[in-house]
Amino acid sequence: KINGERLWDSLMEMAQIGPGVAGGNNRQTLTDADAEGRALFQSWCEAAGCSMGLDSMGNMFAMRPGTDPEALPVYMGSHLDTQPTGGKYDGVLGVLGALEVVRTLNDLDVKTKHPIVVTNWTNEEGTRYAPAMLSSGVFAGVHTEEWAKDRVDAEGKKFGDELKRIGWEGDEPVGARKMHAMFELHIEQGPILEAEGKDVGIVTHGQGLSWTQVTITGKDSHTGSTPMPMRKNAGLGMAKVLQLVDEIAWSHAPHAVGAAGHIDVYPNSRNVIPGKVVFTVDFRSPELSVIEDMEARLKAGAQEICDEMGLSVEFEKVGGFDPVKFDETLVGRLRDASERLGYSHRDIISGAGHDACWINQVAPTAMVMCPCVDGLSHNEAEEISKEWATAGADVLLHAVLETAEI
Amino acid sequence: KINGERLWDSLMEMAQIGPGVAGGNNRQTLTDADAEGRALFQSWCEAAGCSMGLDSMGNMFAMRPGTDPEALPVYMGSHLDTQPTGGKYDGVLGVLGALEVVRTLNDLDVKTKHPIVVTNWTNEEGTRYAPAMLSSGVFAGVHTEEWAKDRVDAEGKKFGDELKRIGWEGDEPVGARKMHAMFELHIEQGPILEAEGKDVGIVTHGQGLSWTQVTITGKDSHTGSTPMPMRKNAGLGMAKVLQLVDEIAWSHAPHAVGAAGHIDVYPNSRNVIPGKVVFTVDFRSPELSVIEDMEARLKAGAQEICDEMGLSVEFEKVGGFDPVKFDETLVGRLRDASERLGYSHRDIISGAGHDACWINQVAPTAMVMCPCVDGLSHNEAEEISKEWATAGADVLLHAVLETAEI
Ligand SMILES: NC(=O)NCCC(=O)O
Ligand SMILES: NC(=O)NCCC(=O)O
Repeated sequence: KINGERLWDSLMEMAQIGPGVAGGNNRQTLTDADAEGRALFQSWCEAAGCSMGLDSMGNMFAMRPGTDPEALPVYMGSHLDTQPTGGKYDGVLGVLGALEVVRTLNDLDVKTKHPIVVTNWTNEEGTRYAPAMLSSGVFAGVHTEEWAKDRVDAEGKKFGDELKRIGWEGDEPVGARKMHAMFELHIEQGPILEAEGKDVGIVTHGQGLSWTQVTITGKDSHTGSTPMPMRKNAGLGMAKVLQLVDEIAWSHAPHAVGAAGHIDVYPNSRNVIPGKVVFTVDFRSPELSVIEDMEARLKAGAQEICDEMGLSVEFEKVGGFDPVKFDETLVGRLRDASERLGYSHRDIISGAGHDACWINQVAPTAMVMCPCVDGLSHNEAEEISKEWATAGADVLLHAVLETAEI
Repeated sequence: KINGERLWDSLMEMAQIGPGVAGGNNRQTLTDADAEGRALFQSWCEAAGCSMGLDSMGNMFAMRPGTDPEALPVYMGSHLDTQPTGGKYDGVLGVLGALEVVRTLNDLDVKTKHPIVVTNWTNEEGTRYAPAMLSSGVFAGVHTEEWAKDRVDAEGKKFGDELKRIGWEGDEPVGARKMHAMFELHIEQGPILEAEGKDVGIVTHGQGLSWTQVTITGKDSHTGSTPMPMRKNAGLGMAKVLQLVDEIAWSHAPHAVGAAGHIDVYPNSRNVIPGKVVFTVDFRSPELSVIEDMEARLKAGAQEICDEMGLSVEFEKVGGFDPVKFDETLVGRLRDASERLGYSHRDIISGAGHDACWINQVAPTAMVMCPCVDGLSHNEAEEISKEWATAGADVLLHAVLETAEI
């Protein structure tokens, strides 16, 4: 079993870096706080006897050597970046839980045949730079590195420039590493495990995601002196589309969700009818056909709304992945480990996207989850218990040991 | 008659300062560009033999002396600040048209009994600092200077600090000046004069305005893993309220308008259900009872929408003025001047708010308008013709001369 106190202490220490305004964290990717968090993680890895690899997307790989020089490493990890108003555990538990597995193996002086690598993937959250899971996506060959480095944030700063600026661009080619297997521990971010009183969730599938950026163009004009029939109010068009998004998602519930979290209005002046709005619709479902249906209905419906209002509308897909099925052997090992350790468990579909969803394309991959209070995540009030974190990391330890072979 | 070429040249020269991105201007109040525009205006006033007064709200008063030391001055003017994506004429025509009147009197060597003062009022637009017409409002005793200076922009910078920073805070107490009369020339910002082929509009009334800032609070949570029934989506609540605003305004059309130009969504991340939105509803009508009805229905309706969705909602009135009736004698002089000069004209109600609306509370006040292309304003593409500008300034000249007495 892992050392739950030590894991918790590390979680709390990492949470000091990039503090939020309400008890959580704002340690967005490629900020100074991200750099500081990386340095702390590296120092811990080195103290645990690992050597650090760094690829040119800033992905970090802390390696604990194995006994067989031929054997491919077993990977574990997640991400240290957070939402602008994020929690202390989303991603971080997966990285520091993996580090705790290594520390435990050191304590017990256990040698494994396969090397073990603890990973921190760059820009999982996708807030500052869309899409989410950008760097694990490049690793898996989903995006080119060039394209990824050209992504810009809201201030126009490029991913590539910011990665250089914070000093965490490595030399290693992205995706060159071959993996024997990859495990990710993560908080559920949803309400099921807590509601059912389960210690851990064995993730069999991940639901798919579609991010469509919608740009509606009307005509800026005066809110006071423009007669109602002459208005081309892009904000009002958006309001109608947002309701459509909700209706579409509900029509597939409980097998789909939908909302817009990102909304920018131009010129955003109290007495100017919005001439342009840009917003991103987030649709998800475990079924690809449902995602495709939702996308199609969004486009047709928004086009109809905008045509009727004399507005123009454009759609750009800014992120997405198909539903994922994780590796059955690894999933079975996580399930067996839970059984063996006496942790109550259930199979679960991940509602969120994870680096594991991309890595699954290039290596056998699986995920284990722990509950979180009220299913709340992407909120500074995100909370888990020490016991939950411990149970998740224990299951990770056992499945990794079985895979890395003693 | 005034010199239309000279007026046009000055308009074009002022438009060089704080250029926009699409042919218009971004010379928002209390920016460096505002300071530069003020300096240019001051240099022109001094060249025209005027002495400049500056009050502690940054309002500028360029005086051409009269022949009677006892006589109160006749004021003319408007504002030099613009929207973030504003036109070259909104406000500027009223200031530079007034300056052109003074230049013309100089050319003709006409002396008036009453002094004549050309005014530039600070922060008319209300974009950077709500409410609009802030400094003419302080002048008229509607707001205290202390309150006005405490207004903050989106970056948290105070009006008072920014006024000091750009170096345009004067010593003169605000509102100390007594006025014999005040005239404002402005572009219509609506479609009526152009559609009817009128040279000028004689403004008999101004419609009233109500700005209600609405804050809807839900709960930030993950767009992927939060089940539909558990969501408290403040963005969706806003979408419903925006449609209500439109319905309310249409129910009173053509005697009312309504829209929201300002919308901020928090934390504004693609994969976070908005936990908070703040937006400002702009309702206008020439009838006070209609404005009151719209405000009441907005509050009741938004409360109902939010109650049903498990959201909370708060309302704050961040700007507003009652419908205005301008001084009949001065209005008559503008109408007579148009007749005399052979300009086609019609009476008109101003759809927008103007500094004249506040000054009307402390002095006899009237306004004259010229058409603008497609009624378009608060848009960089705002356009007028040289002939329209000339006609408006001619009418201003004649009405001012009659009021200032030769
Ligand atoms: N786990 C997580 O919150 N990932 C961010 C990407 C997503 O929106 O699902
Ligand atoms: N004239 C003008 O656009 N004033 C700004 C205040 C308003 O919104 O009416």
